[in-house]
Amino acid sequence: MQIKPVQPRQAGLSELALRTEEPPITWLMSAVLDRPKLISLAVGFTDSATLPVEEAADLLKRLLKNKSRSRAALQYGSTRGLPELRQLTADRVSSLDQLSQPIPSDNVVITTGSQQLLYLLTEALCDPGDIVLVEDPTYFVYLGILQSRGVHARAVRMRPDGIDLEHLEQVLRELRDAGELPRLKLFYMVSYFQNPTGRSTGFQKKLAALDLLRSVERAAGHAIYLLEDAAYRELGFAKTSDRSALAAKRNERVFYTGTYSKPFATGVRVGFGILPEPVLGAVLRIKGNHDFGSSSLLSWLLAEAIHEGVYERHLACLRVRYQRKARLMERAMKEHFPAGKAMWEPPQGGLYFWVQLPKTVRTGARSKLFKSAVANDVLYVPGEFCYAEDRARSKPKHELRISFGAASESDIRLGVARLGKALEKG
Amino acid sequence: MQIKPVQPRQAGLSELALRTEEPPITWLMSAVLDRPKLISLAVGFTDSATLPVEEAADLLKRLLKNKSRSRAALQYGSTRGLPELRQLTADRVSSLDQLSQPIPSDNVVITTGSQQLLYLLTEALCDPGDIVLVEDPTYFVYLGILQSRGVHARAVRMRPDGIDLEHLEQVLRELRDAGELPRLKLFYMVSYFQNPTGRSTGFQKKLAALDLLRSVERAAGHAIYLLEDAAYRELGFAKTSDRSALAAKRNERVFYTGTYSKPFATGVRVGFGILPEPVLGAVLRIKGNHDFGSSSLLSWLLAEAIHEGVYERHLACLRVRYQRKARLMERAMKEHFPAGKAMWEPPQGGLYFWVQLPKTVRTGARSKLFKSAVANDVLYVPGEFCYAEDRARSKPKHELRISFGAASESDIRLGVARLGKALEKG
Repeated sequence: MQIKPVQPRQAGLSELALRTEEPPITWLMSAVLDRPKLISLAVGFTDSATLPVEEAADLLKRLLKNKSRSRAALQYGSTRGLPELRQLTADRVSSLDQLSQPIPSDNVVITTGSQQLLYLLTEALCDPGDIVLVEDPTYFVYLGILQSRGVHARAVRMRPDGIDLEHLEQVLRELRDAGELPRLKLFYMVSYFQNPTGRSTGFQKKLAALDLLRSVERAAGHAIYLLEDAAYRELGFAKTSDRSALAAKRNERVFYTGTYSKPFATGVRVGFGILPEPVLGAVLRIKGNHDFGSSSLLSWLLAEAIHEGVYERHLACLRVRYQRKARLMERAMKEHFPAGKAMWEPPQGGLYFWVQLPKTVRTGARSKLFKSAVANDVLYVPGEFCYAEDRARSKPKHELRISFGAASESDIRLGVARLGKALEKG
Repeated sequence: MQIKPVQPRQAGLSELALRTEEPPITWLMSAVLDRPKLISLAVGFTDSATLPVEEAADLLKRLLKNKSRSRAALQYGSTRGLPELRQLTADRVSSLDQLSQPIPSDNVVITTGSQQLLYLLTEALCDPGDIVLVEDPTYFVYLGILQSRGVHARAVRMRPDGIDLEHLEQVLRELRDAGELPRLKLFYMVSYFQNPTGRSTGFQKKLAALDLLRSVERAAGHAIYLLEDAAYRELGFAKTSDRSALAAKRNERVFYTGTYSKPFATGVRVGFGILPEPVLGAVLRIKGNHDFGSSSLLSWLLAEAIHEGVYERHLACLRVRYQRKARLMERAMKEHFPAGKAMWEPPQGGLYFWVQLPKTVRTGARSKLFKSAVANDVLYVPGEFCYAEDRARSKPKHELRISFGAASESDIRLGVARLGKALEKG
């Protein structure tokens, strides 16, 4: 039985729906469909060979053998999330941040990946026409959320050591001069091994950013928050001791979000947020409408993985594995990319290389280079997807992101070689 | 380490956040916390004793032993959802609806429970100020979504055999006379064993409703949809052969939503929608921003449960179980409720009894009856939570919902006896 489409102009879609564009990744993936030999260096999937299959099987088996836990795992939980996982999360982040007193588990909310938290927070804080600061470049799915919800992004430059504080100050000054501070709600920062650049912003810079945001609150008329997305924090090649903004004295202006999906298994969509009231309460009320709480079974699986040390052991393997793949990718880039044409900073963690080409080389989805890469059966993320629409600068169009996350070692070698060929032509 | 709250007036919350109220159930649950002996007949949880613990353990074990499936289950999937589960869903619903040609699986989207689909659809269709028709009374969490998103509800009366078509016609006429049809987007209907009344709306009535909605489309200037929430369809005490609106010729105006959570395990949050384009595309783009796809692991678990027949066998047990508990609850009501004071229609499925008291008896959260019930350690859902704010009628305040879903047989007996005592006093 066919389901006939409705005439698009007659469909009665909301303004939000009409604003919401196809995510770039979906668009990119559709290019893959007809090319079975294509190697994707585009997606930020994690390594398939290292997925903790046996560990998950063993944890689930033991979990479902336990009479009371098994029932709890198959029953609804609360909107805030499984207390055991919230406590383990609070303890874990407190330990990473070297806090003498742990964060209260009541400030933790469990979400469907950290992505859902980004959405909920943006709903809780931003009306259409509001302004959010983002890094330049930034995580493109967050740009999609902002665009969908009619929120304007202003871009804050990045340096190799993270955000550019002088530029942050300048942007805040410009917003003040334009009378736009009352619309500014938060600064979104991917603080560890950033997507897409691999760069990190250190603790002192976060404190300075918090101070700068605080300094304009009076003119804004309300709190301005730092939203620290620590999705890649645990994916450093070495353990990092650099603290998150939660360790700041004024952490009541900090939203912290993390995920267990990327470090453990992306098919297990479990992320979390650590939030101050009353934003936490607003997020919970909105999440109540979204889904009244994430899956108990997945939350229990992660809680057991952390509690039994399985998570930590898996993480240690991943660190070695990703470091190895990053080095291998870099060697391939040195070998196959035209000398002097491509530049990058070797990342210390995360899943990405951010490659800068001469400004004359376009990398966009309609560029010669992109078409040539796809014709050579290799896919990358055009850098311009990662830049906000910001009237204060023209969008750079000469960069690209490649990932060593999902591809196998041989595919990394082959994919980079193919991309090198496309670069030589371009 | 304390996380200090922000001054509420300084928190900078969005209009949406400020509109979003605490869900009634959260509020009710907080009443439970200090009363360890309290029996909740309020929540729509499913029966804990019949949760398919061994079945889930066995399915997960086999799933994670299969080399390719185990990896797929632990990796990201697509935003639309697992193709295998979408196909099984399309086939299953097509068979329930006795369709000669099955629904295309491309029209199916997998979501975090059916709740997430209700949210996504409302985002995709409704701007603040838009209008949605709901049954009177209806599922209160959907009312929460509407209220949060600034959407106005208009209530359509119910009769023992489902919606009142004459009243639907009248409401549409009133909307036309008030020039409000351009704001009307959809009619939300819980079609099988409705929450809260247990009533069902038959196929012919759905067709008539579709015709009525169609008749005002020209004046509205856009499509007006029937959102059929079939969450309880498979929880009939006997198998029902009554078809959904998908079986209508004009099913391009039908959104169908179902869930696997309630019939299988509520801790496994898997629901789905069957939608026409271009609304489907809009929902997928928005879901891309929410979470770019529900958990692969949970989707695989359900796909295997359906494919292996485990789901169907479990359902057969549940039908017997819930029918038994419903009869037991009714016997207890007959025994303990004051004669002639409480009225109800015995449900043929679902999880609820909808109890009508004399109009002079208030059931609300501040009523004497409610306080007396809590003092007697039993909790119900005040009926007024299930009624939309509608200026066309005053809200009935003399009803209550009790559920035989979660409580054990002895708790049902005891809980109803306690409620009977409260009713005698009230």
